[in-house]
Amino acid sequence: MAKATKTLETLFHDTLKDIYFAEKKILTTLPKMAKAAQSKDLKAAFEKHRTETEGQIERLEQVFAAIDKKPQGKTCAAIVGITEEGAEIMEEYKGSPALDAGLLAGAQAVEHYEISRYGTLIAWAEQLGLDEAVGLLQETLDEEKATDEALTELAEEAVNTAADGAAEEV
Amino acid sequence: MAKATKTLETLFHDTLKDIYFAEKKILTTLPKMAKAAQSKDLKAAFEKHRTETEGQIERLEQVFAAIDKKPQGKTCAAIVGITEEGAEIMEEYKGSPALDAGLLAGAQAVEHYEISRYGTLIAWAEQLGLDEAVGLLQETLDEEKATDEALTELAEEAVNTAADGAAEEV
Repeated sequence: MAKATKTLETLFHDTLKDIYFAEKKILTTLPKMAKAAQSKDLKAAFEKHRTETEGQIERLEQVFAAIDKKPQGKTCAAIVGITEEGAEIMEEYKGSPALDAGLLAGAQAVEHYEISRYGTLIAWAEQLGLDEAVGLLQETLDEEKATDEALTELAEEAVNTAADGAAEEV
Repeated sequence: MAKATKTLETLFHDTLKDIYFAEKKILTTLPKMAKAAQSKDLKAAFEKHRTETEGQIERLEQVFAAIDKKPQGKTCAAIVGITEEGAEIMEEYKGSPALDAGLLAGAQAVEHYEISRYGTLIAWAEQLGLDEAVGLLQETLDEEKATDEALTELAEEAVNTAADGAAEEV
């Protein structure tokens, strides 16, 4: 495609492929984070968000359908980088009372990336008159914001555990 | 250092190195984004944020001093990935009316990463009783949030320009 023909539609489609790749990457990462987490509540939060992520992937597939495109991912360097940092924390802080605090920081970086992406996609879908897509993307954005708030609450507990220097019993 | 000795202090210091690297990376990226931007307002916003970023780097250096450490960066895979995506947009959407919308999306992804990191660092600094650090980090967090809001306003203009299919005159 010639550069001059790149439109807002192209940008919307490209960014949809980016977040589709990101959600699939997150889906494979969350079980590892749940396994690594020390607190039961944090394990449960990661497992709950895994189930939500499956629904978010399905919604993205409906958005692809709404613009008559096949669901397709495109490597998202951002999420690769963010999840790499999470993997480093899991490795370096294994057995440390600060592990859960680190895992939570990584998970919140993921949520903020998603919040930014969905916010952008919604604004573009509105401009493009893609009403069905707006509804689907908004539903996911609301879930991501709720997840981020839930993680903030867990982070307060985790930071206390870390400061006490004692890992919680699993 | 043995894994068992990793504490919340270690995590705070590691994450400080991560955001220090990220801010320096952002400092080199913003002039490229300002150069690429089509709208005068967006160019000005990127230039303003470049100046702010210099101040944010200085504040981070004060935080390092507050914990008796030398300022030091540690490769932040997340920001490397996010800025790589921005570079792709600059290349692929050069000459497209959707370029500014794409640049803004990239800039907002950066802001959200920073908002997430500073929020986390503040919570940890509070727990660690690092009052001076809390103040410095909060000042930067407020700036990042204001930048994100300013970018959201510019994004509304950019998306209209993109939809009109006409690039604004520089």
